[in-house]
Amino acid sequence: MNLGVEKYIPHLSLDCVVFGFENNELKVLISKFKFGEELWNFPGGYIGWEESIEEAAQRVLQNRTSLKNIYLEQFRVFGQKDRILNSPHRDFIRAKLIEQYNESDANWMMGRFVCVGFYALVDIAKVHPKVGKMDLKLEWRSLNDLPEMVHDHREILNYAIEAVRQDMNEKSLAKNLLPEHFTMKELMELYEAVFDKKFSMNNFQKKMLEQGKLERLEKKYTGASNKAPYLYRFLP
Amino acid sequence: MNLGVEKYIPHLSLDCVVFGFENNELKVLISKFKFGEELWNFPGGYIGWEESIEEAAQRVLQNRTSLKNIYLEQFRVFGQKDRILNSPHRDFIRAKLIEQYNESDANWMMGRFVCVGFYALVDIAKVHPKVGKMDLKLEWRSLNDLPEMVHDHREILNYAIEAVRQDMNEKSLAKNLLPEHFTMKELMELYEAVFDKKFSMNNFQKKMLEQGKLERLEKKYTGASNKAPYLYRFLP
Repeated sequence: MNLGVEKYIPHLSLDCVVFGFENNELKVLISKFKFGEELWNFPGGYIGWEESIEEAAQRVLQNRTSLKNIYLEQFRVFGQKDRILNSPHRDFIRAKLIEQYNESDANWMMGRFVCVGFYALVDIAKVHPKVGKMDLKLEWRSLNDLPEMVHDHREILNYAIEAVRQDMNEKSLAKNLLPEHFTMKELMELYEAVFDKKFSMNNFQKKMLEQGKLERLEKKYTGASNKAPYLYRFLP
Repeated sequence: MNLGVEKYIPHLSLDCVVFGFENNELKVLISKFKFGEELWNFPGGYIGWEESIEEAAQRVLQNRTSLKNIYLEQFRVFGQKDRILNSPHRDFIRAKLIEQYNESDANWMMGRFVCVGFYALVDIAKVHPKVGKMDLKLEWRSLNDLPEMVHDHREILNYAIEAVRQDMNEKSLAKNLLPEHFTMKELMELYEAVFDKKFSMNNFQKKMLEQGKLERLEKKYTGASNKAPYLYRFLP
């Protein structure tokens, strides 16, 4: 069986750290390797000769989440010489790929790869995870509950989190992780999850409103009480 | 004549936007194509099989500037399908490369390339520019005085400037562009060049000192006058 690797630029890959926000936790979408062992990775793939790297990332993500036009940003290139070649998982994966496919494709996939890291932000409620060719299953896991990750995928995650923190305000990332209408408390809980620290509501609300990116809606969260919180949305 | 392309990962390149600060202007190091026409580009190269992308960038920069361990950061990957293939300069360069080398190497170099962009920051006074294999000459040019750049190198520059602005405070980039000791006025002039706008000295000095990254030296710039300005340096 053939993997069709000739459709792709050799030695160049991409991995996507897909973030979602659920139950006050930041979660990432990870997949378990299909052919045995507890090997987990971020959804990834290769770049076709006829597509840009961004188009390739959208294709990979659409295949795994069923969503189109996902918000994503490239955040770093992982170009260490031995990131795959010296990985403790390389020989096992290569042997499985030879079993399932053929040696030439297995060597192609387990050779040197320079990897472009993307982070993606989604509304978890809208995602319908679909396994890829190499996946046994996909799971949403909170950052505190991650299994050992394959190759340098833990390092990739750490850089992705740093990039999200750095871009959080400037690129108004929150709007990709929250429903359209949200309370200030929900927004603060998202920030607390992203930055892994507590904020005080008064200061947080003041700083958010100063940025001038939020609109307060007339309608409140519930009509039941005078203390019902206001709803906000990001200005278009 | 052979270019030795088999030493490098195919379809993957890097370009370096080297910034320096001189006469109150931000300048970049650009090179003119050796084999005719007014074609200018940023110093670039390929990634050897035995080196990381950062090591490759250091090698390219050392060859062009004679400096080791240059401060550099990767800032973006340029992965459009046709960035070289549809470039208005492609056919001319390819023809010249066939003349000077051979068709197979020329096709290798003018095929599809995904390019990793690095910015580098140097003290211009320490740089001794050296031409590469494809360069007629290297020049420092201020951002207001740039010739037409090859392929998508103008876009690469624009992203590099954005990245430097974004990292300026967080990564204390100024220390790579100034001499070790500098006046607050010199620091402000650097910021004015980077952000292309004017600051007021009182506000600027207050904000810089608040960051707690500068040390004021006892020694003043000249002993001649009571108004001689203080010198500063970045804390280690």
